Amino acid sequence: MIYFDNSATTLMKPPGVAEAVAYAVSHFGNAGRSFYDPVLLANREIYSTRMEIAKLAGLDDPLRVAFTSSSTESLNLVIGGLVERGDAVITTVTEHNSVLRPLYLKGCDLSFIDCDDHGVLRADTLEEMLKPPAGRPARPANPAGQDASHRAGRSARFLICTHGSNVTGNVTDVRKFYDVCKANRVKMILDVSQTFGVVPVHVDMADILCFTGHKGLFGPQGTGGVIANGAFDFNIVKTGGAGVRSFDRFQPRDMPDIFETGTLNSHGIYGLQKGVRFINETGIDAIHAKEARLLKMFHGGVKDLEGVKIYGDFSEENRLPVLSLNIAGLTSSELAERLWSGYGVATRAGSHCAPLLHKRLGTVDVGMVRFSFSYFNTEDEVQKGVSAMEDIVQSLRQVKKGR
Amino acid sequence: MIYFDNSATTLMKPPGVAEAVAYAVSHFGNAGRSFYDPVLLANREIYSTRMEIAKLAGLDDPLRVAFTSSSTESLNLVIGGLVERGDAVITTVTEHNSVLRPLYLKGCDLSFIDCDDHGVLRADTLEEMLKPPAGRPARPANPAGQDASHRAGRSARFLICTHGSNVTGNVTDVRKFYDVCKANRVKMILDVSQTFGVVPVHVDMADILCFTGHKGLFGPQGTGGVIANGAFDFNIVKTGGAGVRSFDRFQPRDMPDIFETGTLNSHGIYGLQKGVRFINETGIDAIHAKEARLLKMFHGGVKDLEGVKIYGDFSEENRLPVLSLNIAGLTSSELAERLWSGYGVATRAGSHCAPLLHKRLGTVDVGMVRFSFSYFNTEDEVQKGVSAMEDIVQSLRQVKKGR
Repeated sequence: MIYFDNSATTLMKPPGVAEAVAYAVSHFGNAGRSFYDPVLLANREIYSTRMEIAKLAGLDDPLRVAFTSSSTESLNLVIGGLVERGDAVITTVTEHNSVLRPLYLKGCDLSFIDCDDHGVLRADTLEEMLKPPAGRPARPANPAGQDASHRAGRSARFLICTHGSNVTGNVTDVRKFYDVCKANRVKMILDVSQTFGVVPVHVDMADILCFTGHKGLFGPQGTGGVIANGAFDFNIVKTGGAGVRSFDRFQPRDMPDIFETGTLNSHGIYGLQKGVRFINETGIDAIHAKEARLLKMFHGGVKDLEGVKIYGDFSEENRLPVLSLNIAGLTSSELAERLWSGYGVATRAGSHCAPLLHKRLGTVDVGMVRFSFSYFNTEDEVQKGVSAMEDIVQSLRQVKKGR
Repeated sequence: MIYFDNSATTLMKPPGVAEAVAYAVSHFGNAGRSFYDPVLLANREIYSTRMEIAKLAGLDDPLRVAFTSSSTESLNLVIGGLVERGDAVITTVTEHNSVLRPLYLKGCDLSFIDCDDHGVLRADTLEEMLKPPAGRPARPANPAGQDASHRAGRSARFLICTHGSNVTGNVTDVRKFYDVCKANRVKMILDVSQTFGVVPVHVDMADILCFTGHKGLFGPQGTGGVIANGAFDFNIVKTGGAGVRSFDRFQPRDMPDIFETGTLNSHGIYGLQKGVRFINETGIDAIHAKEARLLKMFHGGVKDLEGVKIYGDFSEENRLPVLSLNIAGLTSSELAERLWSGYGVATRAGSHCAPLLHKRLGTVDVGMVRFSFSYFNTEDEVQKGVSAMEDIVQSLRQVKKGR
């Protein structure tokens, strides 16, 4: 098998991740619940994981890292804990359903930053949307048909957006967004599910970062978290036992306790520690450089193939090792099926839980086939992937001729 | 170390649990997200885990088992998804904060079933509370000082309670409760965190069961779930990508999808499968019999020690292998510390996230020391635990004499 679905989950983990989880299952107590050795061991290793994540994100205080079970949970808890029903919120057409659906559920007044035909967000739109009305040019149409309005953008309390698209692999220059947000007193919540561990991610890119453990960070499934760049007055969304202050009606509202109710998944978190430590030791630049090389090789190999249409912006160096494409005459499912059954190449077909971007790019019916690479892929695998694509294009040409 | 904190987490797992998690980390794709082999493998093993759980609970349809990251999450999602703000809800004074706090958060009109001095719930109270007012005797006082009232009980829409107390180890005859609930059109949500895998638990004990994976079921931390005894119209509380129907505004609302948004923790779930299979193969009766024997041995050894006070009802055969106690003159923390540092016996001191029961039993300040046994404890360990207790009692007597 050639595994090119690393944006879904990184199947090939650094040495020690799987072993760490197994070790924890047999040796860790219930963290924070007593003081005997297996509990202290769990406490220590959870804290060490916070430290590794803080290091990777350039964060001083590891206690500003809270663990959850997934990026989806992080986004639900953060959006649920900060955004009020009816709040004006700006988001983008490139979002995953893990951002969009909690916003729909909350019942926000949503405005959407649009993108161009390569899926690149129109960065200057944000400033436009937040400008006072006088002499202001018409705002771009709302592509999603949601509750957007001029008013919504101008009075926005939040920008909630992804750092990098799981469909196109485009990475947004979110520091520009954050500067605009700070100037307009808009709080910015950043979804780094696709970027953390893959390209440089820094706590100063936003007010709050939501991450997953099982993708670029090379941890196990069932891990994720929230990084807070400052103090926030989160409302409690999920509550239960916390091992401390049992006689209060709710668990403490400070970081990280606000998000860590119930038994922490110390087993998964210990595995995550090994994944993030590998990144810190290898260096995010080295990881990005290798993945960029693999991507470039694949892009070079497929971009001129007959009938191949590639989505995304490949002019930028700072992008994800992701390439989504279609071949004329095949649906994405058909192509992905051929890649798997004929060549053992694992990709992801369909809409990748990003409905607005597929609408925007006109691929709702056909979907796209996404190739996503990791540090543990090889040039040989990429070459085989290119050959598989060449083969399929060739066979389609023969069918066409045969008609 | 002698590990007697199995009510917090079972540290000693059956053979194969830790290895299964490690295997899954290296071999499972992102379940439900494509169709290549590592994804199908994850799908299959998740389904097999549903089957093991369904078998243990006497449930026909494995798709009525949904996975979450913990019992706390299950209770938050179920309470959040069914109970409306202001609903009259009956619960009990024996509840864990994982039940109480979501109810406080929702803002329910709460009534509490009281218990006796052994922590045994007054089972007939439920029928009383649901009776029409005429000729009805005064309802027991509300021990928690919450929003209870006569009206609240009578018009209750829900009974939400634990099957077995994590403090006293008492198991409630919940079938009686459920009969009363059905007769009064009250939906019953049962917290089986302490009982599932420890005593017989059957889907027909309630409308909905919430369970954890890392205690009696011998799975890893980060696992848990919901079992639905029928179809329910859950509101969505947590939402995001589901791998299917990406163009809908929310993920599907059927079981199990309603609770399984985002990437499932297939790694942990595979470990859980091995834990539950061990129970199904060994037999819940054999497990309960061994644990009951250990408990009886420990109870017999400590019950007559000078100054020892034991909480809970030890006249019932159907109870958890849990014994909470105090020694006169020591706080629970002091006793637990002595047990650990002097004898390597791991127990749990304090209030065990069950504030109302500690209030009811008068142990708010002192707490209790909980000994909780598992199938993997031995008689030799229990004997050593008894000896440790004898030693501590003896040393206290000498200190007293020395005065």
